[in-house]
Amino acid sequence: MNEKLVCLRNKIRTMDLDAMIVSNPVNIKYLTNLKAEGILILGRKENHFITDGRYIEDVNNTLTIMDGIIVHDSKNLSKEDMENFFLFCENVGFEENYITYATYKEYMYKYKINNFVETENIIEKQRAIKDQEEISKITKACLLTDKCFEYIIGFIKKGMTEKEIAYEIESFFRKNGAEKLAFDTIVASGPNSSKPHAVPTDRKIESGDVITIDMGCVCEEYCSDMTRTIFVDYIDEEVKEIYELVLKNQKQTAEEMREGFVCKNLSKMVQNDFELHKYNLVHSLGHGVGMDIHELPFLGINSEVILKSNMVITSEPGIYIPGKFGIRIEDTVLVGKSVGIPLTKSKKDYIII
Amino acid sequence: MNEKLVCLRNKIRTMDLDAMIVSNPVNIKYLTNLKAEGILILGRKENHFITDGRYIEDVNNTLTIMDGIIVHDSKNLSKEDMENFFLFCENVGFEENYITYATYKEYMYKYKINNFVETENIIEKQRAIKDQEEISKITKACLLTDKCFEYIIGFIKKGMTEKEIAYEIESFFRKNGAEKLAFDTIVASGPNSSKPHAVPTDRKIESGDVITIDMGCVCEEYCSDMTRTIFVDYIDEEVKEIYELVLKNQKQTAEEMREGFVCKNLSKMVQNDFELHKYNLVHSLGHGVGMDIHELPFLGINSEVILKSNMVITSEPGIYIPGKFGIRIEDTVLVGKSVGIPLTKSKKDYIII
Repeated sequence: MNEKLVCLRNKIRTMDLDAMIVSNPVNIKYLTNLKAEGILILGRKENHFITDGRYIEDVNNTLTIMDGIIVHDSKNLSKEDMENFFLFCENVGFEENYITYATYKEYMYKYKINNFVETENIIEKQRAIKDQEEISKITKACLLTDKCFEYIIGFIKKGMTEKEIAYEIESFFRKNGAEKLAFDTIVASGPNSSKPHAVPTDRKIESGDVITIDMGCVCEEYCSDMTRTIFVDYIDEEVKEIYELVLKNQKQTAEEMREGFVCKNLSKMVQNDFELHKYNLVHSLGHGVGMDIHELPFLGINSEVILKSNMVITSEPGIYIPGKFGIRIEDTVLVGKSVGIPLTKSKKDYIII
Repeated sequence: MNEKLVCLRNKIRTMDLDAMIVSNPVNIKYLTNLKAEGILILGRKENHFITDGRYIEDVNNTLTIMDGIIVHDSKNLSKEDMENFFLFCENVGFEENYITYATYKEYMYKYKINNFVETENIIEKQRAIKDQEEISKITKACLLTDKCFEYIIGFIKKGMTEKEIAYEIESFFRKNGAEKLAFDTIVASGPNSSKPHAVPTDRKIESGDVITIDMGCVCEEYCSDMTRTIFVDYIDEEVKEIYELVLKNQKQTAEEMREGFVCKNLSKMVQNDFELHKYNLVHSLGHGVGMDIHELPFLGINSEVILKSNMVITSEPGIYIPGKFGIRIEDTVLVGKSVGIPLTKSKKDYIII
């Protein structure tokens, strides 16, 4: 059995669970490398993967005897087979944050489960701390993101639309080895930059624009996430002041992303400094990055999570002046023993194109 | 209040519900045109949309007084405000097929709901029957899909990889007005075509290949879905025979997609004919298409759903010979009073490139 499965099986034992149903496809991919639809059952002794006709060929080609996973075509399972998966199991864990209420009821009925227990993101918590292979995949995605940013600041010209720029970013990523975008690229120019989650429009880049570019790609299943705010021709004094404030906080928090720091304290540092200058932190300071672009830990203002080495998280403070402009600066950061290590390294001085 | 909201409010009354919480963002978009994160509450008298700081500006710019929706920033809502949304409401509906078990518990607690009632896809059922505006948007996406197919059969050359072809399809869609892909394009060549859900690889197109191309785009929020299987240089007799069998069934079922037909009977027609020739229908015959690429109705072998005019569904029978090749042919079809009307119209004769 692979290490990730062994680790999870040990954890569920300590939670007094006899078995667990894993339904979240990202968790299944993490634990097994399988990309097929289906559910993974960690039973008392064995692991089972239940899938259907569309995926059987692929699943059998991916798994080896070493994985210790028995594959089933759901079509061939009788009512009795279903119930036998959890025979002699008192407590069975499930992913309450993934499965719908309807699926919850379906599982209870189909597998005749006695005590169906919430597992409180047990797998997502395991995923939050990356192993060396995962870190090197994220690093690869971050490196490509830096290259893309370098390319794109040379590409952007006045008169281009946000959509054209976003599309060029996507093309660069694809042509240079990314599997896909980690999320829909944000290119928000002029007043559009005041919306933290702006969608690229047909607005054309003009002189004096602030442009926020939030981008990331997926390499070997792992994501990167980076934001830079750049300027066209010149920078207003008001904008400069806010840029400096955001940048100072971004650098400081990225550095403090080290083992032992409590997430909410990072947010509070920024919130306090912003308030001192009469601004506000309208979104959370950051989030974990891995197979999902947003994963544990979340760095909200109330997060009690304590950072651990080899977590990978973002530091992305932003200030938004509605209808005028916004500034956000973001890096993907590896949590270290004594200091946070940015994995995206694109420059953060004023970039004027 | 808009027509879709009025229609839904009438339906929930007939279900003896006093209110409903809508959480599925596609359903919210369908009912309100809003693309913001948040939840929509259809209360006893008013409609409410609860969102957060990231979206407030956008939401207020999108909604008009005519929509009859009161907007709230969740940050500003007290515990009491939350509980007041459902004051004097006995039965409150929720989307059991969308919200997670954890969210279900959270809503119960947060809104102090007495009787939280499953709504059995009430909105998805409403969405299954399209109005004229929706049909014209889907038609637009289908037209662009036909154009893309015509372009791509001229583009494909031996030596190209599946990935290159898939990327060219995406580029064509984007450059010609699509917002995005409706789903990840499938380009499956040679033995890869035997996997119904193949992912494009670096395999190069060779002489004698069977190539299955499953593609669709999104125009004004609505999807298209089409599959064609084409050939390189020549067609084996074994392949020809299966192609004819699939094509006959595809055409016949598309025609029969008319008001009053029971979905499972369509599947059975195909299943029986395939079995007669010693093949098998390994996936369902089709699915609804709209704002989601897969939506109601699903045309499984057990589906009791009766087709109604102005549903939009796919007819996509396929036969797969593991390790050798696969044939699938698919159109997006508008269910008519007396006959199904294919909205994708690309030719289905043998295409040899």
